[in-house]
Amino acid sequence: MNGPPAEPFEVIDVERLRTGHGVKWGSLVSHTIGAWVADMDFGVPPAVREGILRVTEREDFGYPYWPGEDPVVEAFEERMATRHGWRPEPGRARVFTDLLQILQVMVEYATEPGDGVAIHVPAYPPFLASIARAGRRIVPLPMTRGETGWGFESDGLTGRLREQRCRMLVVVNPQNPTGRVFTPAELAPLAGAAEELDLVVLADEIHADLVYAPHRHVPFASLGTVADRTVTATSATKAFNIAGLRCAVAHVGHGRVRDALDRAPLDFFGTPSVLSRVATVAAWRRSDAWLAALLRALERNRGLVDKWAADLPWDARYRSPQGTYLGWLDFTGSPIGAAAPAEHLERHARVKLSDGAEFSQHTTVDTARFARLNFATSTANLTEILDRVTTALA
Amino acid sequence: MNGPPAEPFEVIDVERLRTGHGVKWGSLVSHTIGAWVADMDFGVPPAVREGILRVTEREDFGYPYWPGEDPVVEAFEERMATRHGWRPEPGRARVFTDLLQILQVMVEYATEPGDGVAIHVPAYPPFLASIARAGRRIVPLPMTRGETGWGFESDGLTGRLREQRCRMLVVVNPQNPTGRVFTPAELAPLAGAAEELDLVVLADEIHADLVYAPHRHVPFASLGTVADRTVTATSATKAFNIAGLRCAVAHVGHGRVRDALDRAPLDFFGTPSVLSRVATVAAWRRSDAWLAALLRALERNRGLVDKWAADLPWDARYRSPQGTYLGWLDFTGSPIGAAAPAEHLERHARVKLSDGAEFSQHTTVDTARFARLNFATSTANLTEILDRVTTALA
Repeated sequence: MNGPPAEPFEVIDVERLRTGHGVKWGSLVSHTIGAWVADMDFGVPPAVREGILRVTEREDFGYPYWPGEDPVVEAFEERMATRHGWRPEPGRARVFTDLLQILQVMVEYATEPGDGVAIHVPAYPPFLASIARAGRRIVPLPMTRGETGWGFESDGLTGRLREQRCRMLVVVNPQNPTGRVFTPAELAPLAGAAEELDLVVLADEIHADLVYAPHRHVPFASLGTVADRTVTATSATKAFNIAGLRCAVAHVGHGRVRDALDRAPLDFFGTPSVLSRVATVAAWRRSDAWLAALLRALERNRGLVDKWAADLPWDARYRSPQGTYLGWLDFTGSPIGAAAPAEHLERHARVKLSDGAEFSQHTTVDTARFARLNFATSTANLTEILDRVTTALA
Repeated sequence: MNGPPAEPFEVIDVERLRTGHGVKWGSLVSHTIGAWVADMDFGVPPAVREGILRVTEREDFGYPYWPGEDPVVEAFEERMATRHGWRPEPGRARVFTDLLQILQVMVEYATEPGDGVAIHVPAYPPFLASIARAGRRIVPLPMTRGETGWGFESDGLTGRLREQRCRMLVVVNPQNPTGRVFTPAELAPLAGAAEELDLVVLADEIHADLVYAPHRHVPFASLGTVADRTVTATSATKAFNIAGLRCAVAHVGHGRVRDALDRAPLDFFGTPSVLSRVATVAAWRRSDAWLAALLRALERNRGLVDKWAADLPWDARYRSPQGTYLGWLDFTGSPIGAAAPAEHLERHARVKLSDGAEFSQHTTVDTARFARLNFATSTANLTEILDRVTTALA
C-alpha cells in the first residue's frame, strides 16, 4: 500500500460540510444522510465525552461483560422513573440501534401488509416512508392549528380508526415537527381508541427530555392499562446529541409483540457498540446539568423564533413549540407561498430548512408550503439565519 | 438524584475481572458474556485509537454523512482486493453489526425450518446454538485429525448433503476452533457440492487476517461461479481486537438472498455507530504494520504451545493452528481425560479455557474431552498458563 489513503470520514467534519455547501454555519447545513437537518450545533455532555475517552485510553474494546441486567436498560428504567414518573416493567425493555429500526421492527411484528397504521401528520418523513414501503396504509391524524397551538381532532377518533382498519397507532410525543407536548387530556382519547380497537401503540418519546416549562412530558405507558399494548421507544441520542452513536431502547409492553420478538433469532436486530452503551449510560445518568443548560439555550432561541415570526409582514400563524428544537414554519401567506419554501430558501437565502412536503408524503395531507427550522445553534447563527430568511422574502 | 451512581461499565476493566475471577491474567479469564474467552490481551492499532479520539475530541457524534459509497464498504472492497486477491462485486456488500447477526439473518432468509445446514464440527458454539434455535437441522461435517493436521472427509460429500436435505453450507475459514486454513483443494469439493445441490454458502472469514505463513487465506467467493451463491461475512473486529465496537460486512453474492434482503425494511437490522465505522476503516486501511507485529507475537506464542504440547507426558496429538489465536487441545489421553477438562482446569489450575463440549452441541459429534485455548496474551502469561495446566495434570 502506498501510505494511508485520504480518510473518508473527514467529510463528517462540520466545518468542511459548511464550506462544501457554501454556507457558513452549522445545523442549517445538511449534515446528514438524505439532506436531513437533524442534529444540534452543540457538543456533547462532559460525562459522555469522558466515558468514551476512558474506554479508548485503556483500549478495552473487547466483548463487554456485565453482571445482571444490561446497563443501558437499567439506566433507561431509572430515568423513566426519576425524570418522567413512569416505572417500566422489568424484563420488557430491549436494546436496539435506533428509533427508525424500532418503528420498522414493530410494524413488521405487530401488523400485516394492508393494515392501517395511524400517525399524526405532519410526521417525521422516514416514518411515513417506512410504513408505506412495508405495504401498510398510513392513516393520517392531521394536526390542525387552533388559537393556542397545534392539536388534532379526537371526536369520532375510534370510529375513524375502526373504519380504516387500523392495527397500530404511532404516537410521536413530543410531536415532530410541530413541537407539541400532548396533555393527558389529549392522550386519553388515543389510549381509549387503542383499547377499544385492540391496537398496538408505538410511542416514540425520543424528544421527552427536550420539553419547555410549564409543559411536561407524560409517557403514554403511564396512562394505565394501555401500557400493556404500548411499545415505548426512546434514546439518549436526541437530547444529548449523539445520534451517530446508535443506541435506543424499546420497552415492549404488548405481550404478543414481546413474545414474537422473543422468538426471533437472539442477535437478529444487531447490537450497539460498547462505546454507544457507555455514552448512553453517561448521558442518562450523569448529564442532567448539561441538559438543563441546553434547555436554557434552546429556550432563548425558541423565543427569538417566536419574535421573528410575530414580526413577519404577513400572518405566519406560527405556534411556538412546547418541546424539541424544531419550528414548523408556514410560508403560505408569504411571497414564496406558492413555491417549495425550503428549496427557495436554500437557493436564495443559502439557508437549509427541511422540506415541508416530505412531512406528509404518502398521505392526502398537504404540507408543501411549510418548512421545518432547526434552532439548535448559537444565538448569533440563528439571528443570521432568520435575517437571511427575512431578506429573501422581502 | 444523589450524585452519580457507580459506573456499571467499570466491570469491563480487565484488571478488575482478573481480580474478580481470582486469576492474575487476561484473556484466559472470562471477559465476555456467557463465559466466552474470545478477545486478545493486546490493545488496538494506533490508527483505530486516533480515529476514535479525533471524532471524540471534536464531539461530532451527529448523523454521519458521506458522499457516495459507505466508507466501510469501500474499505472492505479495497482490502479484499489488495490483501486477499478477491475483487468483490460492487453493490453486493451490506453493513451489519456482527457476524453472529449475519449468520442468523442468512439462516432466516436463505433457508426454511427443517432444512439442513451443513457446518464443520467442532464449530463456534453460538453458530450451532443459532442454527438449532431457528429450527434448522445441523448437518455436521466432522473435522478429523490426520498426520499433518485437521481435515474433513470430502469423498461422498455431495451425496451426504443431498441425503440430509441441506440448503445451506457454512464454511468457517480459517476454521474455529481447529485453526485450519483450508487449501483450494479442500475448498473445491465444498464449492462443487454447493453448485450441484444449489446451496447457499455462508463463508465466515473473520479470521482471514490472522493466518501464519506459508498458509494463505483463499476467499471462498474467489473460487469461480460459486461466488454467485456465497455470502462472505467478515469484520475488522477479530484481527484488530475491537469486538465490542460491533461492525461487520456481508457480501451477498447470492441473488435471491440479496433480493430478499433488499425487500426487508431498510433499517431492520440496525446500524453500527459512527465510531465503529471510523475504527473499522482505520483498521482495514491504516493498521497493517500493527497487524504484522501482532502476527509475529502470535506466531511466537503458537510455537510455545506447540512445544508444550509436544512435551506433554501423553500423546496429545496436538495440531498447530495455521490461523487464529486458538489452540484446540485434546485431553483424552491425559489424567483428566474422563472429565470436562475446561471445568477441571478452571477449578484446579485457575485457568480459563473454553469448554470443548459446547463446540459440538446439538450434534452427534463428541468433543467433550477437548478445550480451546486462547494464546493471544503476553509470552509471560502464556508460559504461566501452560505451566499451571501441566502442574494440574501432573
